[in-house]
Amino acid sequence: MDANPILAEVVRGNWVENRHRGAFIVVDADGGVIAAAGDVERPVFPRSAIKSMQALAIFDRHASERFHHTQEELALACASHHGEDAHVAGVSQLLARLGLSERDLECGAHMPTNAKARAALRARGAEPSPLHNNCSGKHSGMLSVALAMGVPTAGYVEREHDVQRAVRAAVEAVIGEELREDRCGTDGCSIPTWAAPLRAFARGFARMATGQGLDRTHAAGAAALFDAATSHPHLVAGTGHIDTLVMEAFEGRVMQKGGAEGVQCGAIRDKGWGYALKCDDGNMAASQAMVAALLLAHAGPDARQRAVLEQFARQPLKNVRGTVVGEMRAIST
Amino acid sequence: MDANPILAEVVRGNWVENRHRGAFIVVDADGGVIAAAGDVERPVFPRSAIKSMQALAIFDRHASERFHHTQEELALACASHHGEDAHVAGVSQLLARLGLSERDLECGAHMPTNAKARAALRARGAEPSPLHNNCSGKHSGMLSVALAMGVPTAGYVEREHDVQRAVRAAVEAVIGEELREDRCGTDGCSIPTWAAPLRAFARGFARMATGQGLDRTHAAGAAALFDAATSHPHLVAGTGHIDTLVMEAFEGRVMQKGGAEGVQCGAIRDKGWGYALKCDDGNMAASQAMVAALLLAHAGPDARQRAVLEQFARQPLKNVRGTVVGEMRAIST
Repeated sequence: MDANPILAEVVRGNWVENRHRGAFIVVDADGGVIAAAGDVERPVFPRSAIKSMQALAIFDRHASERFHHTQEELALACASHHGEDAHVAGVSQLLARLGLSERDLECGAHMPTNAKARAALRARGAEPSPLHNNCSGKHSGMLSVALAMGVPTAGYVEREHDVQRAVRAAVEAVIGEELREDRCGTDGCSIPTWAAPLRAFARGFARMATGQGLDRTHAAGAAALFDAATSHPHLVAGTGHIDTLVMEAFEGRVMQKGGAEGVQCGAIRDKGWGYALKCDDGNMAASQAMVAALLLAHAGPDARQRAVLEQFARQPLKNVRGTVVGEMRAIST
Repeated sequence: MDANPILAEVVRGNWVENRHRGAFIVVDADGGVIAAAGDVERPVFPRSAIKSMQALAIFDRHASERFHHTQEELALACASHHGEDAHVAGVSQLLARLGLSERDLECGAHMPTNAKARAALRARGAEPSPLHNNCSGKHSGMLSVALAMGVPTAGYVEREHDVQRAVRAAVEAVIGEELREDRCGTDGCSIPTWAAPLRAFARGFARMATGQGLDRTHAAGAAALFDAATSHPHLVAGTGHIDTLVMEAFEGRVMQKGGAEGVQCGAIRDKGWGYALKCDDGNMAASQAMVAALLLAHAGPDARQRAVLEQFARQPLKNVRGTVVGEMRAIST
């Protein structure tokens, strides 16, 4: 197996300290390759980068017709949110309308990703709840699917539960490939995650961006989800995060979503292209540098969009006293 | 440039999620290679892994004769400590004997590495001080060098300060190579760090373990520092850390020290071997898996030592709910 190319490096002073390898691909809905580097056929776990694909089950199973998810709730279904007030409020609102509560969430609890939200929680002497889990919006959406299907909500995170079967079927339909039992793991929030080639995920995002190759329900669902995410970028991630800043700057033209362990996926909607990227070693900052370089090269940024992307393509490295001592930077292939 | 081999990987479920490349070498004091993998000639920043080499300046500059550092204070000079009570007390004690205080430390302040120490600080509503900085023991030692040299302590972290010149000279003497201006960066604690080949650092540790090739002062200083570190493993890192656990288990036979961004160095003292290792992407957990595999293969562990090392050679991966969903594991070359 050839090594993937170095797509980002960390420089300290005048010498390279760390090297990050990876692979990426930009494709159209027919699978035509716009750009690629590294092994894009090697299956990778997409983790949270495909939450918008997983959320298609909401449309498949008529949950959207029954519960009339707001655009904010759809954005949260696609989100790895930071546990800020707007995130917690939005998830609570959907759960209340479903007649459920945070006790029905099976994602587990972790401290909010946002530092101010963490400090506020600590100041109140409160423990984090499943509502603060970055995946709580996705899980609320999955609970709505369980109710719409008329199946018990308990155990909805399990691989054999009808909800996860529906989610799996939606992802398979969009990427046009079967997800295989011998490439399966459990995600941080306890649902299954299935490894598949970057090429397949990228093409899936191109199909979601264009509707091409999708049935009417998936095409309409994809358009609704992408509109929701790009209209409410703060709900999809949080203050200062690359996904939020990029979607704000591109004003609907780009849907961008990171996933744990160095995955980045999305669509350049006006061009009808999807992309997928993985940093081999799972480093998130490196994967953000890589996807910033990808969007600089392929999303046709204007000056303001370029300025946002360049913050991530070259990230200052600071020491304990706050002095800049180097940088993480993308390397163009 | 050939890619270094994969020395650790993360498995999620039944599929590999992340791959970590690196290089390592185990050598004797003559430079005879016991084992090696990857490019050991490529210069790498050793960061905190060579604090015991840097601490030799305490002996060069007669600071030890003037201030009679205790064995605990020497262990702290070699330490990346966790800001626990014993660490803060030990550093405070040396500073007081020097007639200095935490205000003289130029390392900056960060939260204690130890979770209980962090919680205790938060519970008191207190901010972290430079005493909690993991490098405060090294910096206190450097302040003692400044006093012994009769130079101002202010600015002792700067590359051109007499203290850093002394530290640089000590490291050069031990590794037997010049540290070059075109391979220099600033460490997290604001002192200079110089990149040099893993081979040179490993041989330096073999020379420190044996005294071979060192002048009398360095040989005596190295023995005192290794005795201090291996007699007080908790002071060199902290509760639960690999460096502490390994040195406790090996009861003087192994001096093990990690450095930021995936560096691991040390000596198998009874064999007279030194070793040095770097994970290309800077991942610490991966570098700990790698060094555990190195010590399993080369340090001749008994059953208890083996059990300690195996905890790090295969580290369980848990999700938010605490379920084991995979592992980080070393790959033998």
